[in-house]
Amino acid sequence: MPSGTAASCVTVALVQTRCVDSQQANLDKTVQRIADAAAQGADVVCLEELFDGPYPCQSEDHRQFDRAEPIPGPTSRRLAEAAAEHGVVLIASLFERRAPGLYHNTAVVIERDGHLVGTYRKMHIPDDPGYYEKFYFTPGDLGFSAFATTAGRLGVGVCWDQWFPEAARLMALRGAHILFYPTAIGWLVDEKAEFGTSQHAAWETMLRSHAIANGLFVAATNRVGREGQIEFWGASLVCDPNGNILARAPHDEEVTLLVQCDLSQIDVVRTHWPFLRDRRIDAYGGLTQRFLDQPPGESHSRDP
Amino acid sequence: MPSGTAASCVTVALVQTRCVDSQQANLDKTVQRIADAAAQGADVVCLEELFDGPYPCQSEDHRQFDRAEPIPGPTSRRLAEAAAEHGVVLIASLFERRAPGLYHNTAVVIERDGHLVGTYRKMHIPDDPGYYEKFYFTPGDLGFSAFATTAGRLGVGVCWDQWFPEAARLMALRGAHILFYPTAIGWLVDEKAEFGTSQHAAWETMLRSHAIANGLFVAATNRVGREGQIEFWGASLVCDPNGNILARAPHDEEVTLLVQCDLSQIDVVRTHWPFLRDRRIDAYGGLTQRFLDQPPGESHSRDP
Repeated sequence: MPSGTAASCVTVALVQTRCVDSQQANLDKTVQRIADAAAQGADVVCLEELFDGPYPCQSEDHRQFDRAEPIPGPTSRRLAEAAAEHGVVLIASLFERRAPGLYHNTAVVIERDGHLVGTYRKMHIPDDPGYYEKFYFTPGDLGFSAFATTAGRLGVGVCWDQWFPEAARLMALRGAHILFYPTAIGWLVDEKAEFGTSQHAAWETMLRSHAIANGLFVAATNRVGREGQIEFWGASLVCDPNGNILARAPHDEEVTLLVQCDLSQIDVVRTHWPFLRDRRIDAYGGLTQRFLDQPPGESHSRDP
Repeated sequence: MPSGTAASCVTVALVQTRCVDSQQANLDKTVQRIADAAAQGADVVCLEELFDGPYPCQSEDHRQFDRAEPIPGPTSRRLAEAAAEHGVVLIASLFERRAPGLYHNTAVVIERDGHLVGTYRKMHIPDDPGYYEKFYFTPGDLGFSAFATTAGRLGVGVCWDQWFPEAARLMALRGAHILFYPTAIGWLVDEKAEFGTSQHAAWETMLRSHAIANGLFVAATNRVGREGQIEFWGASLVCDPNGNILARAPHDEEVTLLVQCDLSQIDVVRTHWPFLRDRRIDAYGGLTQRFLDQPPGESHSRDP
């Protein structure tokens, strides 16, 4: 497909796995899954967040920085070889060592010929019990992008980004056809019974809302398995520009989810639900503020 | 409850009705429902969009402008009397005649003593087959507000606004506890079988997403009944700051939906899902643009 057009189908593959301690074992398994997905017709493969090891942020542990690599580096090169060997576009999430004391949670977009199309550094960094990412990751400085590839223009966010409508909108305004979110989200074991259903529903609702509000496809790849106090909830999914879920992976199984996305739907949906036409860009300046004081006279009272 | 604090419960009432041609009949019925809701403990009552008559925008018909009134005007005064008599905050949607040739789709917020707290003029104006609003309504010029009332700080959008995450966010940044959306949305009769389920699901998903993304309550009041080619789908709803639907009205019945909202949940949810903490306001400038060209170097390729 010519990049930048929306005339044909793209087959998306989401690789949802359970991670073990051995980086080599995770990488080997993932490369095999990339090969299998390509054999089944995948155009673009998206891995889960930090797919090459256990989620490193459950505690603030300086030893975890040893997992990070520069980009380009050994892992990104291995992935590029796999992309080229199997002829797929690849979206992979890596723990990036950019400089001493400067680390990012970064996604790379690799073309079918193995070249690096671009990188995205996670912009929104969470910090909550069990997810101490602010200790590890410097907030990204590359903004929100849509990368032109032979599988369409691909927006890439990482996990926590998916809760921010601003990120999805900015990728849409850059021309994205599909938003990909490599993810590592799960239930804290002692919260699952009380809040688990609501938490998972909220996650799915936000992903679907980005598809609807922006008239594009949304795909999220999450991991599965218990790691420490987190039970990662899997349920990787792809939804269409109306927010309908085209496919959803199970909560607890390793699986590669293949979904066909007909990019020609984007213009059809957007001309029937023309939100991009009607945005009030003259009135959105406040979005760059942390909080807004009341404008003078807003609470002005008068006789109705 | 002192305005501006979030320490107690607010009982919300949504008045979902079927409209007839007689403005007087619609108004009388609605005032009776306001009285009934107040008797059941309502603190704030939200009416559906343009509640005092059939939805006027199914065709481009100059005679419909005769329905519009100034604000203050006869209808807003009648509503203010009802609010004062029954001691409830009232959110009502009106066809506003501001000046000759200048009309708006406007919502008023009226206090329990009958004074007008403020007005909101619909910012996002739709225009689709059966919903020819751009013919009638000048886009609003008052921005997005959260009105301080004795029932909390209330954000008010109108119908089409609910598809725009920017609007919800801006009301949240102004301190809103609850977002209200007077609404007139339905199925085009000849589309319902094929698209109806997906359309309604998309609507509900967007409303829930605003609650989740902003950690506040969201309420939408929709009308019911067949008018011309539109079957209004009712299903007025209130959801909590986690996006859980607290109550949903039926698709085809007149009903007043009463829901208790514990505003103290807002701070709890926002400190557990701290999205407002992590917004990247340094990187959101593009949201005031219609579309974004690729930044220089974004598609820069290099060896991974």
